[in-house]
Amino acid sequence: MISESTICAIATSGTGAIAVIRVSGPATYEIVNSVFKPAKTEKDLLKLSANTIHFGTIHDGEDVVDEVLISLFRSPHSYTGEDVIEISCHGSAYIQQRIMELLISKGAEAARPGEFTQRAFLNGKMDLSQAEAVADLIAAESKASHDVAMHQIKGGFSKKIKDLRDKLLHFISLIELELDFSEEDVEFADRTELSLLVNEVKELVETLKNSFQLGNVIKSGVPVAIVGRPNVGKSTLLNALLEEDRAIVSEIEGTTRDSIEDTVVIDGITYRFIDTAGLRETADTIENLGIRRTYQKIGQASVVMLLVEASDGQELIFESLRAIREQLKDRKSPLILVINKSDIADPRVFDDNFLEKGEYICRISARNHQNIDQLRETLMNAVNIGHVKHQDVLITNVRHFNALNAASGSLERVLDGLSSALPQDLLAQDIREALHYLGEITGEVTTDEILGNIFRNFCIGK
Amino acid sequence: MISESTICAIATSGTGAIAVIRVSGPATYEIVNSVFKPAKTEKDLLKLSANTIHFGTIHDGEDVVDEVLISLFRSPHSYTGEDVIEISCHGSAYIQQRIMELLISKGAEAARPGEFTQRAFLNGKMDLSQAEAVADLIAAESKASHDVAMHQIKGGFSKKIKDLRDKLLHFISLIELELDFSEEDVEFADRTELSLLVNEVKELVETLKNSFQLGNVIKSGVPVAIVGRPNVGKSTLLNALLEEDRAIVSEIEGTTRDSIEDTVVIDGITYRFIDTAGLRETADTIENLGIRRTYQKIGQASVVMLLVEASDGQELIFESLRAIREQLKDRKSPLILVINKSDIADPRVFDDNFLEKGEYICRISARNHQNIDQLRETLMNAVNIGHVKHQDVLITNVRHFNALNAASGSLERVLDGLSSALPQDLLAQDIREALHYLGEITGEVTTDEILGNIFRNFCIGK
Repeated sequence: MISESTICAIATSGTGAIAVIRVSGPATYEIVNSVFKPAKTEKDLLKLSANTIHFGTIHDGEDVVDEVLISLFRSPHSYTGEDVIEISCHGSAYIQQRIMELLISKGAEAARPGEFTQRAFLNGKMDLSQAEAVADLIAAESKASHDVAMHQIKGGFSKKIKDLRDKLLHFISLIELELDFSEEDVEFADRTELSLLVNEVKELVETLKNSFQLGNVIKSGVPVAIVGRPNVGKSTLLNALLEEDRAIVSEIEGTTRDSIEDTVVIDGITYRFIDTAGLRETADTIENLGIRRTYQKIGQASVVMLLVEASDGQELIFESLRAIREQLKDRKSPLILVINKSDIADPRVFDDNFLEKGEYICRISARNHQNIDQLRETLMNAVNIGHVKHQDVLITNVRHFNALNAASGSLERVLDGLSSALPQDLLAQDIREALHYLGEITGEVTTDEILGNIFRNFCIGK
Repeated sequence: MISESTICAIATSGTGAIAVIRVSGPATYEIVNSVFKPAKTEKDLLKLSANTIHFGTIHDGEDVVDEVLISLFRSPHSYTGEDVIEISCHGSAYIQQRIMELLISKGAEAARPGEFTQRAFLNGKMDLSQAEAVADLIAAESKASHDVAMHQIKGGFSKKIKDLRDKLLHFISLIELELDFSEEDVEFADRTELSLLVNEVKELVETLKNSFQLGNVIKSGVPVAIVGRPNVGKSTLLNALLEEDRAIVSEIEGTTRDSIEDTVVIDGITYRFIDTAGLRETADTIENLGIRRTYQKIGQASVVMLLVEASDGQELIFESLRAIREQLKDRKSPLILVINKSDIADPRVFDDNFLEKGEYICRISARNHQNIDQLRETLMNAVNIGHVKHQDVLITNVRHFNALNAASGSLERVLDGLSSALPQDLLAQDIREALHYLGEITGEVTTDEILGNIFRNFCIGK
């Protein structure tokens, strides 16, 4: 499976203090040898020990491009399983580009997205679900999504699937042996044992399938819509939620928070606040209530927060609530009635007894950060995720979910076939199908198309 | 000089395939030991060889935060001269932040911008001008600015300054000895030799001072204004210039070009195109010519490109040219008359003989990329930078320029003093002053304020 080409890519992003350029493939040492001049050590990098670091310069003929550190790895003890060298250079765009150009001029190829991880998979360093988890890990923005990805990288459910699949493989070989002796009507595969095994596999498949909803929420975050008329305090509320979240990390300079704007992490789960800015801008007095409009945004939300003011009075609050209920009637999304400015007017304007099933109430002052913690808790309860333990086996990937669904159907047919004494060849076909779908998850069965789809979404350099 | 605190920072930027977190200081090994579990090797990192790489996990109690590689460096053979460990982790914001939090909880401090390089300076790993060049190197966007910074990192002019300063120090000690024996009227310091030395120092100082203008252009780029009436093809021209520049690198995926928008690199020099978008927007027919307006932007430009159309006719082109000449009359900025759409109308509408000194002409078709190369060359000639060799000693730093200016004044006074047989104590004072200013450049004389100003502008993690 070892590739013939040698690939290179910038593995870090943007410009910073340092950048790392990764080279992998059979010509790695030859290529880097031709552009790296060590400050002190042996010139031929191949003669140096693996897993060591060396200081020197990258040069383009007479031109010194940069002073760098290089890290040496030797096949098979590397990320890709191939010979790998990582060049740690100064992080200017110019230097990164020059070194890339130089490596390419010496015979390396610019790596495609995910190509390093794809090679790791092809060289047997990890199975396919582990490879997919690498991308999930890099994209993870919350503890829960990180833990799920980390669990999957370490083998997670794929080892279980593989073990059960191996047992199924054993049975199918017995059944296919029966086919060879079909005239003699022998039965090498114990049907009771097979039935037990298929049930066991099916149970795992169903558990994994059922975990997908939670897994998906953990991976992608819970979309939350805050609605209410203008000036009711939506921004202040969002800021209050964000602020508490950010306070935790504000002491650490240099950490990037750009990508997690307008998301709040509560107990490891990411809540994504959907922009309802459009609703704020109406100046029409009749429409001023805002919530009478058809909210497309609400359709995207898993939970809706209706924000009103304590001073709005019972009638207006009811009207708002009814309008939102109307919007949500075909969905089961929970609704949280948030009574803001509870420090100014009496928040008891609304009686909790008027709430329906799936509706929650919270009385806060966004400005004074009153009851924000309680709101966070209400949000968690409304979404009903509870505490997620990273030991839990969770499916987060649509591809896995689809494969599990298909495997479930095949396993169901196997069980039917066993109870109705289906001919061996038909039974074997159903088992083969289940094996195929299970193998797709771990990558024991794969096609270029599947691989292409998976690794296309990786970042370059991974 | 060794620091008591141990610092940590993310040395790469943003989220990518991998990120590198750097730890430096006396407790580096102790801190990383407490959060890193090696996969195979010896648990106590201190017992492992320096300059080696180890695979393992970063854990927070039972929680596995990430699978990482760590690179071990031991004082004094590290970037800072202290014990250093670099943690190469998956590049998610979440993981970077968790590891930073973890290191800080174990006693590390978040590094200030440039603190690693500041420690390298304080520990004698580099002088101050070399340290400053590290920031320049990371910021360098063109070959020329990169080469100047690289030259400075490798010692560049600071070694010369240091050598001459050491010789001056020798003389001042002799002169101060004379002061001790002032009653006896002895002369330990040979005045002819001293005069020769001071002249030599002054020559270097003047050369360096004079290189600042070019150095600054190389470092910051040449500001260019393209002016002309709307629809004359400014955007098309800019795109044509940019495109040729970008074609060189477009084959390499993953290189960051974001930060060099609207700049064109020609023969290693960066040209920054100043936004004159405002001029494009006028719809006033009288003002439609555009160039009659007072262009604030022109004041910022080192060279102005006046873009007209071949079909504009001689009269209109002259009018435009006169208006621009009016704007530029107090400045010596060169002017390039660019006659666009030369493929449609006759570009000979304007006679080259009408050009004045410092004015250039170029006939192009931006749309068809005709003569764009010639325009690039004209731009180079107009700015008159010529080929910059990276061996040239160039000053790019205002701080250095100011120190050289001050040193130049002191040296002048020393020479005056020598020719007028100034008393030893006054002569000594002038030499001391010169020594002080020269020492400021290399950091042999420094204050917390100077250091603070320098390293504040570094990025975090460097």
